[in-house]
Amino acid sequence: MDRGTPTTPAARSNGGNGRRTAPHNGRTSLAPHPDRLLPPETGQRAIARRLYDSVRDLPLISPHGHVDPRLLAEDQPFPDPASLLVTPDHYVTRLLHAHGVSLPELGLRDQDGTEPAAPREVWRAFCSHWHLFLGTASRQWLESELHEVLGVEVQPSAETADELFDELTARLGEPAYRPRALYESFNIAVLATTDDPADDLRHHRALAEDPTWSGRVVPTFRPDRYLDATGSGWVRSLDHLAAVSGIDTGDYAGLVRALETRREFFREHGATATDHSAPDARMAFLPEQEASRLFDAVRAGTADEQEAGLLSRQLLGEMARMSSEDGMVMALHTGSRRNHHPETLRRFGPDTGHDIPLQAEFTQALQPMLERFGTHPRFQTVLFTLDETVFSRELAPLAGFYPSVYLGAPWWFLDAPRAMQRFRDAVTETAGFHRNAGFIDDTRGFCSIPARHDTARRVDAAHLSGLVAEHVLSESDAAQVIRDLNERQPRIAFGL
Amino acid sequence: MDRGTPTTPAARSNGGNGRRTAPHNGRTSLAPHPDRLLPPETGQRAIARRLYDSVRDLPLISPHGHVDPRLLAEDQPFPDPASLLVTPDHYVTRLLHAHGVSLPELGLRDQDGTEPAAPREVWRAFCSHWHLFLGTASRQWLESELHEVLGVEVQPSAETADELFDELTARLGEPAYRPRALYESFNIAVLATTDDPADDLRHHRALAEDPTWSGRVVPTFRPDRYLDATGSGWVRSLDHLAAVSGIDTGDYAGLVRALETRREFFREHGATATDHSAPDARMAFLPEQEASRLFDAVRAGTADEQEAGLLSRQLLGEMARMSSEDGMVMALHTGSRRNHHPETLRRFGPDTGHDIPLQAEFTQALQPMLERFGTHPRFQTVLFTLDETVFSRELAPLAGFYPSVYLGAPWWFLDAPRAMQRFRDAVTETAGFHRNAGFIDDTRGFCSIPARHDTARRVDAAHLSGLVAEHVLSESDAAQVIRDLNERQPRIAFGL
Amino acid sequence: MDRGTPTTPAARSNGGNGRRTAPHNGRTSLAPHPDRLLPPETGQRAIARRLYDSVRDLPLISPHGHVDPRLLAEDQPFPDPASLLVTPDHYVTRLLHAHGVSLPELGLRDQDGTEPAAPREVWRAFCSHWHLFLGTASRQWLESELHEVLGVEVQPSAETADELFDELTARLGEPAYRPRALYESFNIAVLATTDDPADDLRHHRALAEDPTWSGRVVPTFRPDRYLDATGSGWVRSLDHLAAVSGIDTGDYAGLVRALETRREFFREHGATATDHSAPDARMAFLPEQEASRLFDAVRAGTADEQEAGLLSRQLLGEMARMSSEDGMVMALHTGSRRNHHPETLRRFGPDTGHDIPLQAEFTQALQPMLERFGTHPRFQTVLFTLDETVFSRELAPLAGFYPSVYLGAPWWFLDAPRAMQRFRDAVTETAGFHRNAGFIDDTRGFCSIPARHDTARRVDAAHLSGLVAEHVLSESDAAQVIRDLNERQPRIAFGL
Repeated sequence: MDRGTPTTPAARSNGGNGRRTAPHNGRTSLAPHPDRLLPPETGQRAIARRLYDSVRDLPLISPHGHVDPRLLAEDQPFPDPASLLVTPDHYVTRLLHAHGVSLPELGLRDQDGTEPAAPREVWRAFCSHWHLFLGTASRQWLESELHEVLGVEVQPSAETADELFDELTARLGEPAYRPRALYESFNIAVLATTDDPADDLRHHRALAEDPTWSGRVVPTFRPDRYLDATGSGWVRSLDHLAAVSGIDTGDYAGLVRALETRREFFREHGATATDHSAPDARMAFLPEQEASRLFDAVRAGTADEQEAGLLSRQLLGEMARMSSEDGMVMALHTGSRRNHHPETLRRFGPDTGHDIPLQAEFTQALQPMLERFGTHPRFQTVLFTLDETVFSRELAPLAGFYPSVYLGAPWWFLDAPRAMQRFRDAVTETAGFHRNAGFIDDTRGFCSIPARHDTARRVDAAHLSGLVAEHVLSESDAAQVIRDLNERQPRIAFGL
Repeated sequence: MDRGTPTTPAARSNGGNGRRTAPHNGRTSLAPHPDRLLPPETGQRAIARRLYDSVRDLPLISPHGHVDPRLLAEDQPFPDPASLLVTPDHYVTRLLHAHGVSLPELGLRDQDGTEPAAPREVWRAFCSHWHLFLGTASRQWLESELHEVLGVEVQPSAETADELFDELTARLGEPAYRPRALYESFNIAVLATTDDPADDLRHHRALAEDPTWSGRVVPTFRPDRYLDATGSGWVRSLDHLAAVSGIDTGDYAGLVRALETRREFFREHGATATDHSAPDARMAFLPEQEASRLFDAVRAGTADEQEAGLLSRQLLGEMARMSSEDGMVMALHTGSRRNHHPETLRRFGPDTGHDIPLQAEFTQALQPMLERFGTHPRFQTVLFTLDETVFSRELAPLAGFYPSVYLGAPWWFLDAPRAMQRFRDAVTETAGFHRNAGFIDDTRGFCSIPARHDTARRVDAAHLSGLVAEHVLSESDAAQVIRDLNERQPRIAFGL
Repeated sequence: MDRGTPTTPAARSNGGNGRRTAPHNGRTSLAPHPDRLLPPETGQRAIARRLYDSVRDLPLISPHGHVDPRLLAEDQPFPDPASLLVTPDHYVTRLLHAHGVSLPELGLRDQDGTEPAAPREVWRAFCSHWHLFLGTASRQWLESELHEVLGVEVQPSAETADELFDELTARLGEPAYRPRALYESFNIAVLATTDDPADDLRHHRALAEDPTWSGRVVPTFRPDRYLDATGSGWVRSLDHLAAVSGIDTGDYAGLVRALETRREFFREHGATATDHSAPDARMAFLPEQEASRLFDAVRAGTADEQEAGLLSRQLLGEMARMSSEDGMVMALHTGSRRNHHPETLRRFGPDTGHDIPLQAEFTQALQPMLERFGTHPRFQTVLFTLDETVFSRELAPLAGFYPSVYLGAPWWFLDAPRAMQRFRDAVTETAGFHRNAGFIDDTRGFCSIPARHDTARRVDAAHLSGLVAEHVLSESDAAQVIRDLNERQPRIAFGL
């Protein structure tokens, strides 16, 4: 497969090799340039182009993301472009919200009974604000996605909105645009989903048992709601876990055992990693008796917020300990203040665009854990951050000493070309290339997977071309590095 | 007006279009290159040049700065180059101080009766240390200012100091170099000053009522000394405010009312914004009764420093509340440790070059305020920082969700070409271009206004040319963006 | 001497001018490109090349490093390449450790009696992991060192390891590769070592008294173990200091006097600076009586950790006071969490690759000290950091006001080309070039000295060429700046 050219029938029939076709009827053509994101200087661009070409058709390894496995298990067609590209993508809705478009106008349903706009209206709102995405990572992905996956030839705008809506709705109904067909055309080698420990993994099982399906979709164990003892729903979550696992979670040892059991269940279904969100990376390692006492107090509602926080860190520490025993890779996505705007949370729920990053600190936070497991032969962790300052200051030095520590790719707000360049510049001089976990797309938007990996490959090609042009690396070394970043590193780091 | 060429008669008569003329008598010519700050690579430079040309003659919008309105109201000539360019500019005096030149040698008067050097001596000190400014933002501005505004053709040096002093002193006496004539030649569309709430705004009124004056100079409400309850002069300030407003500021409600009244007075004189300095951006929202009690304790001198700090944050919170009601934009300039060197403060007063930035944090600090006003239809805030780490981590994510939050331009130590590039790189991928408040010159140096805007335009042209050369933006999109950054964005963000 | 070409006989006989010779027998040639680290764009590279050429042969000034003076005093040959380049270099061993090579396999001796690998085995382990250093600063230095100092022509690899080991072991036995001969060929003007206050400086004296030796090797006073009252060995250190100095260190005044006496002893042996490691830069200035009480409590073991920390800061403050009196420059290397992995510390001791940087803060931390000594005519400090965020936020503003504050070069993990570029970009616009202390190599690897200085000169040439190409500096100004950075600035900043 050649991702420089379109990946679906409609796109292919467009010719779509990046030549800019003349706009007609006053509309602007949408045709991402084949050399986009590569450096302008001619000599360096040629190097970058060769490096990019050497990896652009490699299969995609996606060790972390938020695609719903049901999508592939059921293989239903996507209904329309707004439901596919706008309403569920909080990168998109948040920026439109900042420009005064309300979330119901973008199709979000609230708790107060406000009627969300119909998909066509949502699409119009999106298209008429298209210029507001100029310069953003989302614009890059959407341009690639619209053109290369969905075969669109004109820029979204107020004028083209209806025409594009009809064109895309029709196209999405075609067999070639169903999830499984797209999975094939995206050339995905392995896709990890993100799943609740209480999930029965029926969709993963269905896929595994389906003789017509040859893809690899593995679950990831994401136990946040059982570990975060500060939230109001924690006790209810424990009860749910007890019901699913058949293990009484009414005391500390029970919760630990239930989690261990569910990890085992996940491993049986192909999981190789756990994933964790927390405000920071601190973990506690209390004596069992003290942990039990703390658990009882929090569960009884007699503990204060600080104690609940300590228990949460203790439970995260248990996850590290379990990883050192069962070998599941521990991916840490820390550092966000979730749900910054309470009224938006109340009306629209979480993951609606107002999680805001916090200052990060890893050196002190991780010391107690790394003291225990940092050189343990079975333990492995991948560290992500939303605070760029820790790349050169903490993460590269940690990954440059501890065999268990891998550098996670720039994540979320940092999953964008210039931020990715800064990441490479910040970590490479200390940790080299082979302490990296490779790229993760972290996406909820299934159709954005190829665009995101393609962006990462272009940025790496650009970065490496600079080192080659400055005679820091030979071009053959650079070619090996970019291949390793796309094949070897994610497999090693995530145990895939 | 063509700012690529000189803006004053003397400068124009120099030819002054940036051609380097041969130095004579062993002196080095001063002729800023027409392509300065544009990228070296030929293809990209051509793009940058076109983008820059498309905006360089746009009128200047200056929504924040420290020009004294009396300057324009009275229109007196500037006395000499040292009094104009050296003594009042703490960017200049601080670096000379770091190299061992004392502040009295730079014309500053101290409390101990040390006689400050005469302007010619000050000018000599400045010229003989001119090379120490190499690479600084000040050097850029001064070169532009000297050449393009003031028509200077040779580099300052020990050898040229006297000749330049005489030449400039004579020139500043000419009608074309008076403040109003310069205002015209600078092509300023609107200039906001920074004013004390107790100010009677007589100079603004005089300008507004002067039929021979067609410029727009608006005040900005800057109430720091009434909000900062930790300082020793706070009670005296409240008394002064009471005298001016005719409202008793002896209790909390009175102070609030007095501030509201003065805001109204400012709005009647054209103000659209308030401006605030504080160590950080935290605001408190106490129940009125608690705020009153706190006020009474601080006013009576029975409160400790922590309580005084809380009251200060409470009063800043009141400003946010008032903005949500009266629609004045709330500009926040936080994050400096003022007056780092107490002996220099004692001798020379504040704003003498030893305010040093602090770590900044906005995500937690602003949460209580944004919870209340973040989506309020009348509320708007512009956030500035001296800590670059918050650009990608906090400010872009906040501005990319809250409709009320605008990104302030890189400020003070960061108002320099490379820092501006880093700012654009840090925020654009998350927030795009249209959450920016545009450029502010923030200057005390009236004659530096065109140089500072010109620098910003060049840097934006350079930045955008990179995105065009990498095929991230089309050149026509980039041209629209740079126009928006110079026209639409500051007007929208500051309500102008 | 021409450092673009090899500096030793064997290297010179290789031709070694950077032409890539064809690899033979499937091996890859090792020939660092003459234009490495210079910018790719042709026009800018030409500027950079001229700037680099203008300084590449200047004598090396090394005001801070960890070369053992015995090396030069005794002038014994280096035994083999592993003992020279691998085992003692924690930049190298840490990254190999991260890739699963144990420290005994790299020649480190532990406390448990594990037999370390023989040098040839160590060298094999190093060579077979050579690709893991791609992109790191260490790779740059090692390539230069191997090729230009040691005359190696092929890349290390599993295949070439034995051959290289034999070749290098033989070469190191030749007279031209003894330390003193290398010192000559490196063209070192002055080399500062780092020494314990109790050291008798016999090697410095031996060199000074040796009529056959014409180099300049000066000690640096590094009193960490006597100032850090939090460590378990502190009391023992005081006793040792008492024995050496003949001054009772049993009370505060005695310790202060003993330290003053040793500083004087160091100055008599040519020292111009003191050097300090601490978690942060805070200093305390307690009244003498309070300091005495604190000292007594800590010494008696009745104080808690917080009090011990306060005493440590008090003692660091005494160092600043002494510097203001005796004129020794105070170099601060703060901000590392030493010995992050306790088990590695226990087995292998300190400086074994697991010191991890911490967040830094200078504005508040240094205020009390700068309030006292910031404008003192005899006081001078050079500030280093492992946290890049303070470069633009704190260090450049401090150095841009206080005449006593100099900017230390990017240090340790930041002593690498891209990080050095970021440093220049971060500080120059605020502080210019002449508040910099110039480059320090900070190395334990004697043979890496020329490679490290050469890297710094190339990066400065690259950085300045960008400013010249953007018409920010004239090329003649840039040439003066790069000369100043290599000659004038380190001599001024370190009092050499």
